[in-house]
Amino acid sequence: MSSQNPVFIPGPTNIPESIRRACDIPTMDHRSAAFPPLFERAKTGVRKVLKMDEGEVILFPASGTGGWEAAITNTLSPGGKVLAAQHGMFSLKWIDLCQRHGLDVEVVKCPWGEGAPVDRFAEILAADTGHEIKAVLVTHNETATGVVSDVAAVRAALDAVNHPALLMVDGVSSIASMDFRMTEWGVDLAVTGSQKGFMLPVGLAVVGVSPKALAAMEGAKLSRCFFDFRDMLKLGTPYTPAVGLINGLGASCDMLLAEGLDNVFARHRRIAEGVRAAVAAWGLRPCAVSPALYSDTVTAIVLPEGVDGNALVRHAADAYHVAYGAGLGEVAGKVFRIGHLGMLTDVMALLGIATAEMAMADMGVPVTLGSGVAAAQDYYRTNKAAPVQAAA
Amino acid sequence: MSSQNPVFIPGPTNIPESIRRACDIPTMDHRSAAFPPLFERAKTGVRKVLKMDEGEVILFPASGTGGWEAAITNTLSPGGKVLAAQHGMFSLKWIDLCQRHGLDVEVVKCPWGEGAPVDRFAEILAADTGHEIKAVLVTHNETATGVVSDVAAVRAALDAVNHPALLMVDGVSSIASMDFRMTEWGVDLAVTGSQKGFMLPVGLAVVGVSPKALAAMEGAKLSRCFFDFRDMLKLGTPYTPAVGLINGLGASCDMLLAEGLDNVFARHRRIAEGVRAAVAAWGLRPCAVSPALYSDTVTAIVLPEGVDGNALVRHAADAYHVAYGAGLGEVAGKVFRIGHLGMLTDVMALLGIATAEMAMADMGVPVTLGSGVAAAQDYYRTNKAAPVQAAA
Amino acid sequence: MSSQNPVFIPGPTNIPESIRRACDIPTMDHRSAAFPPLFERAKTGVRKVLKMDEGEVILFPASGTGGWEAAITNTLSPGGKVLAAQHGMFSLKWIDLCQRHGLDVEVVKCPWGEGAPVDRFAEILAADTGHEIKAVLVTHNETATGVVSDVAAVRAALDAVNHPALLMVDGVSSIASMDFRMTEWGVDLAVTGSQKGFMLPVGLAVVGVSPKALAAMEGAKLSRCFFDFRDMLKLGTPYTPAVGLINGLGASCDMLLAEGLDNVFARHRRIAEGVRAAVAAWGLRPCAVSPALYSDTVTAIVLPEGVDGNALVRHAADAYHVAYGAGLGEVAGKVFRIGHLGMLTDVMALLGIATAEMAMADMGVPVTLGSGVAAAQDYYRTNKAAPVQAAA
Amino acid sequence: MSSQNPVFIPGPTNIPESIRRACDIPTMDHRSAAFPPLFERAKTGVRKVLKMDEGEVILFPASGTGGWEAAITNTLSPGGKVLAAQHGMFSLKWIDLCQRHGLDVEVVKCPWGEGAPVDRFAEILAADTGHEIKAVLVTHNETATGVVSDVAAVRAALDAVNHPALLMVDGVSSIASMDFRMTEWGVDLAVTGSQKGFMLPVGLAVVGVSPKALAAMEGAKLSRCFFDFRDMLKLGTPYTPAVGLINGLGASCDMLLAEGLDNVFARHRRIAEGVRAAVAAWGLRPCAVSPALYSDTVTAIVLPEGVDGNALVRHAADAYHVAYGAGLGEVAGKVFRIGHLGMLTDVMALLGIATAEMAMADMGVPVTLGSGVAAAQDYYRTNKAAPVQAAA
Repeated sequence: MSSQNPVFIPGPTNIPESIRRACDIPTMDHRSAAFPPLFERAKTGVRKVLKMDEGEVILFPASGTGGWEAAITNTLSPGGKVLAAQHGMFSLKWIDLCQRHGLDVEVVKCPWGEGAPVDRFAEILAADTGHEIKAVLVTHNETATGVVSDVAAVRAALDAVNHPALLMVDGVSSIASMDFRMTEWGVDLAVTGSQKGFMLPVGLAVVGVSPKALAAMEGAKLSRCFFDFRDMLKLGTPYTPAVGLINGLGASCDMLLAEGLDNVFARHRRIAEGVRAAVAAWGLRPCAVSPALYSDTVTAIVLPEGVDGNALVRHAADAYHVAYGAGLGEVAGKVFRIGHLGMLTDVMALLGIATAEMAMADMGVPVTLGSGVAAAQDYYRTNKAAPVQAAA
Repeated sequence: MSSQNPVFIPGPTNIPESIRRACDIPTMDHRSAAFPPLFERAKTGVRKVLKMDEGEVILFPASGTGGWEAAITNTLSPGGKVLAAQHGMFSLKWIDLCQRHGLDVEVVKCPWGEGAPVDRFAEILAADTGHEIKAVLVTHNETATGVVSDVAAVRAALDAVNHPALLMVDGVSSIASMDFRMTEWGVDLAVTGSQKGFMLPVGLAVVGVSPKALAAMEGAKLSRCFFDFRDMLKLGTPYTPAVGLINGLGASCDMLLAEGLDNVFARHRRIAEGVRAAVAAWGLRPCAVSPALYSDTVTAIVLPEGVDGNALVRHAADAYHVAYGAGLGEVAGKVFRIGHLGMLTDVMALLGIATAEMAMADMGVPVTLGSGVAAAQDYYRTNKAAPVQAAA
Repeated sequence: MSSQNPVFIPGPTNIPESIRRACDIPTMDHRSAAFPPLFERAKTGVRKVLKMDEGEVILFPASGTGGWEAAITNTLSPGGKVLAAQHGMFSLKWIDLCQRHGLDVEVVKCPWGEGAPVDRFAEILAADTGHEIKAVLVTHNETATGVVSDVAAVRAALDAVNHPALLMVDGVSSIASMDFRMTEWGVDLAVTGSQKGFMLPVGLAVVGVSPKALAAMEGAKLSRCFFDFRDMLKLGTPYTPAVGLINGLGASCDMLLAEGLDNVFARHRRIAEGVRAAVAAWGLRPCAVSPALYSDTVTAIVLPEGVDGNALVRHAADAYHVAYGAGLGEVAGKVFRIGHLGMLTDVMALLGIATAEMAMADMGVPVTLGSGVAAAQDYYRTNKAAPVQAAA
Repeated sequence: MSSQNPVFIPGPTNIPESIRRACDIPTMDHRSAAFPPLFERAKTGVRKVLKMDEGEVILFPASGTGGWEAAITNTLSPGGKVLAAQHGMFSLKWIDLCQRHGLDVEVVKCPWGEGAPVDRFAEILAADTGHEIKAVLVTHNETATGVVSDVAAVRAALDAVNHPALLMVDGVSSIASMDFRMTEWGVDLAVTGSQKGFMLPVGLAVVGVSPKALAAMEGAKLSRCFFDFRDMLKLGTPYTPAVGLINGLGASCDMLLAEGLDNVFARHRRIAEGVRAAVAAWGLRPCAVSPALYSDTVTAIVLPEGVDGNALVRHAADAYHVAYGAGLGEVAGKVFRIGHLGMLTDVMALLGIATAEMAMADMGVPVTLGSGVAAAQDYYRTNKAAPVQAAA
């Protein structure tokens, strides 16, 4: 696999030069006076990116899955009831994690390609007058299907019946790329990782914790130690922190905030629109069942009957040295995914579209070479990037 | 803090140039065909460094503390009994972690500066005819005191009474720097991290698992998901792996094995002997109570009454931009620590000794300037490094 | 200008990751025993890339222009007669350099877009029975027009009349990308730079010197010191060498030779054919007047009357952050140039083509979006890259 | 040779991390709008470091030797008379360069270890009433002997007799480390390279040109093209510039100016004083014959009769992987040199001193181990570095 071509997996993303350098620093004593400013810069930056007015940011040397585990083990107790929808591979995996930790998950199964079932959640929450449900889980962006869910609507459903359950959101593939409003949406636990919108290597689980979640912490009976919020809040770094990644996270937040979050989101929207224009030109459709659900960070593309998406992804890697996401779980083989999150340029997106086109043609998908590229070119030309693009 | 001076904390260590580069690679699709060879190289390398003839190597995107958690949650059940000695900060912390996960730890308290109490362990194990004890924990190298414990002797104590408890070893600050023999010593779970002997940034928990520990895995009832061995063994990478660090780990193992493990250990011994010669020349003594306990990776130096080790460490950082380890827990303020693990050269060690000398003099310790340096110079001159030193 | 997009200038080229690292090394004492092996590796590699069976390779810390100067000042004397064609900006500049050093250049002016005028050279050489002409200059690849000249034919013209003039070749934008045969073609002085086919930053002038040129060295009366071959041959490094670039040059040669020179040339040919297919699909034509003259490293594309190529290049940089070459000298404004030398992948070339398409459309060139991309995709799909591509 | 140890050659110097990164950038189109700001930053920075109020800064992709050549070929004509002292290897080499370019050099030979003979120069200039002498050459810091010359005094000698000769100064190993005042001292041509005080890799010749030297340019008849000031002044970059190094030079100047030039010079003085204290403690003496001549960037140390300095340097490299400078020319074998320029810390200097001590002891020099270190420690402790040291 040539290291010269960008990747189009929905994370880890292409790492900008300046971020790679911010991560790759000489060994620093994390107990020296040099570390705290760097640590605070990262946490303050995350706070702004999450749009948190209150609460705490906690960073673990782990992946997003560790963030899921931290969110539940720090706030819930064995046998606690949790409400969650299963509408893609990552929502499914979070449910599984809860079950392994002894939680009682009420699973609402939805077709893959749909978002979190807000109406169904509202009914269940309304019916739960005894407040058995301790937490509602939402996968903000289902990376497996390219579907965005309406977190604010879930909050509204909770509020409508004054339900006290914690609202936990997996923002792994949305945060720092798409709008996320922790305080405004009343999110109690927001989970993400370093390797998506923050454009870093894997290695940091980033968790935003609301005051309400902090209050739940003391009574939570699930066992934890590595992921214990209490040590983190008391000691800062109860064990050796990932200094390089924390420095990188600070640099990443600074870069995002310098560009302006709205510009960052608009940039992701533009790039995504070009990809979707290409998909339409190919005569194909996204897995997400309606435009309101389209993700701006990843597009899962439904392939014609008889074309194996996994084989397509392997072929693109072998023949053109370009990486796309394969389908997972229920949509394995049926879709392939183009990741378009992080610091992509218009013309990098064209490279991804052009290569997908060749790979599909090679696999027998009846696409016209150049058709998707032309549709995206047309979109990008008539919707130019802002004049000063944040370079890297 | 100048990034030009080497650090003398007992980890994270100074990262050789080639290892930094092996970690800092462009984004690679971990689901592509390019990843498995790189993953296998790292695991095979670790297997050799641990001297494992059987069992499995598991890598988590976490720190060594995560490795401790993985070791116990994958093999033990709530209320399970564990035998451990508390003779330093890291043995203390592992015990605390066990307790938080609901284990019943029989703690043998020893003076800090001593090693694992093999005789006492032998008595307890002999008395445990009902085999209530499910695991014995040993901190191979107590980083807080610079004390090495005799793992083989603990194994012998277990074998002497045919005790079936699992032998779990924290080798965080010993493995890849000092001799470690997983299979020969009958270690069931060996835990380390990337940022010590492997000379990488923080971010990988490395766990060696014996066949006996693997057998214990299925019956273990402690809850876990992020750290679940089963997913790791079944899926390889159940969530996004730390590709860069895994590549770095492979490079590190290759570097260590090319030098030859015996040469690596001898190199650490040489460097450590020079440091100890300096300590003696200063008229001071190591915290470790006898030469057999001296660690080859870190020396904790007992300061005269009235000198605050923590202030000394801060002063060395402020005045000379050199990082040493402060005392922790019971020996906080009483010692300071010179870390000498990873890829140090003789002359880097002299820099560390010379700076410690100045900082001590500044703090009122009655040391003769140049005395420690001269003692170490004398040792290094008459015990020269091997002609072909592994460069980086 | 985003640093994420590849450049499509005809040098400096995109630097592969591994080459960047080979150049960016810690300071090394060039007088230590560590330097000579690294120096020899580079020179031996260049020798193979130039296909030299005899003579010397000399490396200056300079650019290709310095190589031109070295070639003439080391072998010629004031007032010496030189034969050269002026058919592009770089052939023109070398002539100017000769004139400034007091040489008497017989300039054959040719239309830009044509190659070296072999027939005319043959006539002149045949007529020069007194052997007044001391050197014949050939620009192997005219970077300004994308034209390759027939060096072997010039050699044949010399041999046909037993003319003793030195054959000097500017291979700056051909060597290491297109076939070059120093010994077979009887080239006496071959000049190139580090930043083209060798894929390094600017900073090394690379000169191949035949035994005949070495013999001419002693009698040459043009003054020189920095560029004096004699010091280089006697002392190796008469002043501080560019150690990092020399290490990079060794790595580059090793990479090229591992791929196989024929594969390297075929790779450049493939990439170039895709670009040329795009040009045809756009209804445009290369500046090179016939297919035999087409360069495999750069294509100068003639724009329709009324379109300013320089404005086009500026627009592509401003709007899409992609760099192309502007027209120079006689073709300034009339052409723009796509550089396609060094380590490009098929899909990077598609990015370059797609962006050129958008920029041309923006500037009013009547191209159909996607048309050039489709033509190149078709070519690349049906002429796939070798299965094992040299990655970087 | 371990790449972990700092070097103690008098250039190339140890490159700070941030400077390495400023040099190692992705390929940038030097004809794009991104390059000029970067180019101007470097030239403006150099202007401040040289303390130039007027005139031009010119940067060649070459080494300091190229700067020497540029200085003379752009301002003098064949047969022109030049006054210069020969008191070390580098003054000797510059004289040789002048002679090879056909200049008539009046050479004043001085003992090596002395500075430029100001009185003798004054006499010669006074006697030259016909103003035959067109230029006076001064080697500000003789790197071979560690001797600094009094440039201001040479200017005074010129002014005393209203002599119009150009004052050319080799500041290769002084500029950016020791005080240099181009305008105040009336220097007409100041030459340096990137790899000394600017802490960059080799590859840039940096030349400061006074208005008077610019005026001399048009009438100068020595031939030049690669090094022609006129092209540089007219075109900026008449051929491909070394973009990475130019970016690095800008970063270097910014770093130096942020620290403050006076602080930079004081830092070099402090480090040098520590080294000189060590030399005295060893019972040895610098090659420079009096304290007023001591260089703050390099100390050449005279060895006892019978000890071969070159063997000593080789031994230090082989046994301890530390590089020192060997003696050159008349002092070859008689001295060895400790370079202490660029971004060294106190404790890096101690490493250099400690290693020299071991190497000398190994070679039979009767030094007491630790003695030089103790003297330097004492100096550094009682003359602490400024609290905020420019880190890198």
